[in-house]
Amino acid sequence: MTAYDPNNIFAKILRGEIPCFKVFEDDRTFAFLDIMPRAPGHTLVIPKAAARNILDIDPDDLAAVMRTAQKIAHAGKAAFAADGITLMQFSEAAGGQEVFHLHVHVIPRHAGVALKPPTSYKEDMAVLKQHADKLIAAIG
Amino acid sequence: MTAYDPNNIFAKILRGEIPCFKVFEDDRTFAFLDIMPRAPGHTLVIPKAAARNILDIDPDDLAAVMRTAQKIAHAGKAAFAADGITLMQFSEAAGGQEVFHLHVHVIPRHAGVALKPPTSYKEDMAVLKQHADKLIAAIG
Repeated sequence: MTAYDPNNIFAKILRGEIPCFKVFEDDRTFAFLDIMPRAPGHTLVIPKAAARNILDIDPDDLAAVMRTAQKIAHAGKAAFAADGITLMQFSEAAGGQEVFHLHVHVIPRHAGVALKPPTSYKEDMAVLKQHADKLIAAIG
Repeated sequence: MTAYDPNNIFAKILRGEIPCFKVFEDDRTFAFLDIMPRAPGHTLVIPKAAARNILDIDPDDLAAVMRTAQKIAHAGKAAFAADGITLMQFSEAAGGQEVFHLHVHVIPRHAGVALKPPTSYKEDMAVLKQHADKLIAAIG
């Protein structure tokens, strides 16, 4: 496996070098909106530690990421009156990974509404801000 | 959310009431092959505790499930010479869930090979047995 690249876009988000719509943060994890959401409220949960994907993440960091993912799942269900939640995590390009810092997709779902294809639609920034605010309020 | 149904098929597998191709088990988790694999080695990791999905699972059980999922990811990569891994977890029907006991899909991937559509292909039992044996050997 290729080594972790500290200049990937999520590492830059973690360092505050580029902006994001943050919805949650704790000592080990960080959660922010996907700007190309497959459904409203689509959030990415990442570890603060350098980890490329499932193959190299420290198991305790993975546990922390999932604890946050569960929190976001509850918030997404509440904030978007979702009927369900879809989680996805892709490791290596063959697994579907595009940014090489581990991330878990947490996607609120509604009955009968298919996911948009990946990276097919860049959401309006004002809409993303509204969605982030709704999630933050739901996390409480 | 609907209450947990103790007669779902994965609960029956946990109780040994119906057979499965087990690949791993520890005190909190159980892993076995999906008999309708989306790619060879497609494994399901479940908690032993009753949990419908991400919305009701005990966070410590979720952490244990992910620890096992990571173990299976490594084994799947080794056993099938995979180039990547795809994880998916569906909660509620709108989220893609079909069996209502929490499960994480761990799917070995190869470059350029798309996933089969869900529940599109029932694998031969002898092939599943071979695949389980390969995973068990890789887990060591």
